[in-house]
Amino acid sequence: MKKASIKDVAKLAGVSIATVSQIINNKKERFSDETIHKVITARNELGYIPNIAAKRLKGGTSPLIGVLIPSFRMPFFADLIQSMQVDGPENVDLVFMGANEENLETSIYSLIERGADALIFGRPIPEHQQVIEFLNKRNVPYLSLDQSADLDAKDQVMVREWQGGKMAARHLLELGHKKIALLMADDMTDNMHQREAGFIAALLEGGLHPVDNIKTNLSKHGGMMAAEKVIETGATAIFALNDEIAVGLIRGLYNHGVSVPNDISVVGYDDTDYAEFFVPALTTIRQPVQQIGIDALNMIINRLADHDLPQQNETLDLQLIVRESSIPPRVMD
Amino acid sequence: MKKASIKDVAKLAGVSIATVSQIINNKKERFSDETIHKVITARNELGYIPNIAAKRLKGGTSPLIGVLIPSFRMPFFADLIQSMQVDGPENVDLVFMGANEENLETSIYSLIERGADALIFGRPIPEHQQVIEFLNKRNVPYLSLDQSADLDAKDQVMVREWQGGKMAARHLLELGHKKIALLMADDMTDNMHQREAGFIAALLEGGLHPVDNIKTNLSKHGGMMAAEKVIETGATAIFALNDEIAVGLIRGLYNHGVSVPNDISVVGYDDTDYAEFFVPALTTIRQPVQQIGIDALNMIINRLADHDLPQQNETLDLQLIVRESSIPPRVMD
Repeated sequence: MKKASIKDVAKLAGVSIATVSQIINNKKERFSDETIHKVITARNELGYIPNIAAKRLKGGTSPLIGVLIPSFRMPFFADLIQSMQVDGPENVDLVFMGANEENLETSIYSLIERGADALIFGRPIPEHQQVIEFLNKRNVPYLSLDQSADLDAKDQVMVREWQGGKMAARHLLELGHKKIALLMADDMTDNMHQREAGFIAALLEGGLHPVDNIKTNLSKHGGMMAAEKVIETGATAIFALNDEIAVGLIRGLYNHGVSVPNDISVVGYDDTDYAEFFVPALTTIRQPVQQIGIDALNMIINRLADHDLPQQNETLDLQLIVRESSIPPRVMD
Repeated sequence: MKKASIKDVAKLAGVSIATVSQIINNKKERFSDETIHKVITARNELGYIPNIAAKRLKGGTSPLIGVLIPSFRMPFFADLIQSMQVDGPENVDLVFMGANEENLETSIYSLIERGADALIFGRPIPEHQQVIEFLNKRNVPYLSLDQSADLDAKDQVMVREWQGGKMAARHLLELGHKKIALLMADDMTDNMHQREAGFIAALLEGGLHPVDNIKTNLSKHGGMMAAEKVIETGATAIFALNDEIAVGLIRGLYNHGVSVPNDISVVGYDDTDYAEFFVPALTTIRQPVQQIGIDALNMIINRLADHDLPQQNETLDLQLIVRESSIPPRVMD
């Protein structure tokens, strides 16, 4: 197969070669989201690879950016970092760290001492004051995602979590559910609390109180273990903190002979890459994973180019994706 | 909650404190797999954290090890690197790279130039001769996993893929299937070819030829898109290259009104962390993910301590996990 050229990408996306070049080289300010999306989709479809040798001649070396996430096994983060790698600007080198609390700080110091140029925090830092001082002293810029909003980073990419929670609640209200429960987690980051609060606020606006708000472990197993408690609430619909808990819950309900969506509707959160493959396919709130990754990388590149840039803030929207796991409640005889 | 001590871990695991200390500090040679497993499980359950300050006083700085994988979105690799992070020795700092082919080499150079101490290759390197020369010149040790066996690394962790394929075939033969097909991928690494060959060899030993060997994209979508072709083979059982393809296939068959396992049995490969949550739960071949990660890290630490060590090789076993997606074929009227 012939290698795709930038011309092929431009043709498929229906834009000029200059547009493709600018978008791929991370100069996206002038373009609409739609154009950016078309170009990236066309590039991925054709597998277009720019000539690195040519880029090197022009540019010199790329910055090395470290990205910290809580766990590689959480599909939201796997999606996020894969998207940074595939859809992000090409003039950076990325390394990822899924450090545990016990070695989080030493991993950060180790990477910075070896010359990493910037950090992106996708997880909270327990003793962050010390880490932040270290980074500031070394003049290493850092950006925080939603999950680490308490870091007071200059640059930040956030998501409208409150609205996301509301969307999930309104969907269930519109289906006619009256007995609605939440299945949240024992340990939640700030953005998760917003999600929860938005959901409850929308229920109250609809004149309902949640019938229960159960806490479980933030994992598929946690969702599965909570099935019995969920059944005891008598709820006809559940909002799960994320897709992982939702999927575990659906399996747990199945083990108890309770069918989703016939007996209970379930709404997840994240729209991780397996949500559409489950039986039943999961109704969920889609995170703008690709955009979070691209925006975060672009901001940090801007910051590296100019440390005195004003604060950069981006707040992104979520989207309700209705699939098979939520239907109107059964009419009681 | 009181912080767990090494004493608590020893008590829960039913072993001595010295045993816990040695296993956690990566001196495992003298212990059985069972003891190692008990200690690691107890440690994880209690969340035991050794005193890093004390370790630092004794040891100095930790080596930084880079791990290359093909994609963060492939659950096998997500499991593998998470396991390295959580269950691996604590005296190393780990960074992970999921580089694309286009920036693979620059990412490697970038990390090494900044002082990374060793590399683990979990993916093939297209132009590896140049990369290997670079690493050798800099005296940077590297280890290869199965997926990159062609690198001729001094140290290597492999899995008995041929046996894994055989296990899957024998399971289906024992259930009484006579019409068996394979669903493989367009692009396969060497270890995947061994898997395929082992499966076919065991069928031949059982006096059967596969009714078909379909190739698809190595993804959930690839599995789903292949459903129609799979139905056309008339097979009563399918061996999918991995769990991702298996799960996509099951969903695709469902979309065509074909039920797994009632109409067709499906066996996956990897035992990724969602296999048990699917409906139907997936019969699969379990990879020794935790052991691959721990062994690879221990070998590379040994190598860093002594560059002249003889070649280190480990070949690990797989395990058949029977769940709901495979049953005997329906008796025809």
